[in-house]
Amino acid sequence: MAEGQLLYEGKAKRIYETTTSGVLLVEYKDEATAFNGKKKETIAGKGVLNNDISAMIFQALSLAGVESHFVEKVSERSQKVKHVEIVPLEVVVRNVTAGSLAKRLGLNEGEPIEPAIVEFYYKDDELDDPLITEEHVRLLRIARPDELKTMKEAALKVNEELTSLFADCGIRLIDFKLEFGRTADGSILLADEVSPDTCRLWDKDTNERLDKDVFRRDLGALTTAYEEIATRLRQKLTASGGELS
Amino acid sequence: MAEGQLLYEGKAKRIYETTTSGVLLVEYKDEATAFNGKKKETIAGKGVLNNDISAMIFQALSLAGVESHFVEKVSERSQKVKHVEIVPLEVVVRNVTAGSLAKRLGLNEGEPIEPAIVEFYYKDDELDDPLITEEHVRLLRIARPDELKTMKEAALKVNEELTSLFADCGIRLIDFKLEFGRTADGSILLADEVSPDTCRLWDKDTNERLDKDVFRRDLGALTTAYEEIATRLRQKLTASGGELS
Repeated sequence: MAEGQLLYEGKAKRIYETTTSGVLLVEYKDEATAFNGKKKETIAGKGVLNNDISAMIFQALSLAGVESHFVEKVSERSQKVKHVEIVPLEVVVRNVTAGSLAKRLGLNEGEPIEPAIVEFYYKDDELDDPLITEEHVRLLRIARPDELKTMKEAALKVNEELTSLFADCGIRLIDFKLEFGRTADGSILLADEVSPDTCRLWDKDTNERLDKDVFRRDLGALTTAYEEIATRLRQKLTASGGELS
Repeated sequence: MAEGQLLYEGKAKRIYETTTSGVLLVEYKDEATAFNGKKKETIAGKGVLNNDISAMIFQALSLAGVESHFVEKVSERSQKVKHVEIVPLEVVVRNVTAGSLAKRLGLNEGEPIEPAIVEFYYKDDELDDPLITEEHVRLLRIARPDELKTMKEAALKVNEELTSLFADCGIRLIDFKLEFGRTADGSILLADEVSPDTCRLWDKDTNERLDKDVFRRDLGALTTAYEEIATRLRQKLTASGGELS
């Protein structure tokens, strides 16, 4: 499937060179990992679903004016993206208390957070991706203050768009993680993936988990949940006339 | 020693009522604790030293225009303070990488941080006093945004004064933790204690630890280090004409 040399292999994706300068091929793997890799499993079909969902979301965001590294979906399992240097931050937006936030602050899950909050985690497996403050970002020289501002604003814009998109699919966007990259000309671009691996998505009526918590908490079949997301998104986006690759 | 009813007993201090309305008596205990109470020891004389040092520092800060809850030193082991409702935040100022910051960010200890950074930790033993962001402070309704701003500014002013005071004593102020309280009229006042239990203090020439890390890391006799701090502070403050109780 890949055209060129393998440049990088992460927990959930492989990145290859392509014949086009500045363009890379991302291949989505079937590996599910959680708790910084301590829990690990191969789930057949997960890569195909995440490639599909991530492509749909990047296209919907582009139509809403949020540019990303996404170029086009190439195959069931792969998509072409612009080459960026990933900023080692996980930018997390939270609309509802859940996961590590609820644990850190001693809160129940499911409480609305208004307005949404943005958090930064330092992408470093050895350090276990710690929560850091904006002053820590400055101290570590991870990003300049204007870049941090750009990422925060983009994250809130993504939140606005995706909250609305998922609401139209009967799904609550609880929280999500974004990553950004620097292009060759130094601008900041949304990168990585946006999928049920990186978002918490609860069914609006039943609160059923339709995201990686199914795997983290052994709640059932992951692909059933992800297929539900893919199906609802495709229905909604096809109905609203967006062109889906 | 105490005049009235015991109101509260913490890890390092007891708080008593006094016969004066709005004034409490703080008695400094000899208990040393670290790692959220997991390490614990009684060190004879520690309470006397911390009461002495904290009183000197609160008086020096008052002369520099930073008001605190401190009223007067009453005995070797106790001081009178204004009654405040403690804000459940540890406000930490860092001038040099050390301790949990170095660990969290994977940095060596001893690297200067310029400008100093301010962090907030949520005072909650069960949660292990987690680092939190200003948005978490808002979410938890721990403090209003204007109160947070007041505390941050006061912390940086304290840093300026204490960095200079300790430098005059041949000591580097590496980092320190402050707590604040709300008075009956709702204003924010520096509270708790400022001592080698709550500051990292390194000898300027030898980098010798003169603070609670002596206990945390089993580096020798704690009281020897604290006596060194008390002696140097007393010499400096007596020489500069401040009246010490």
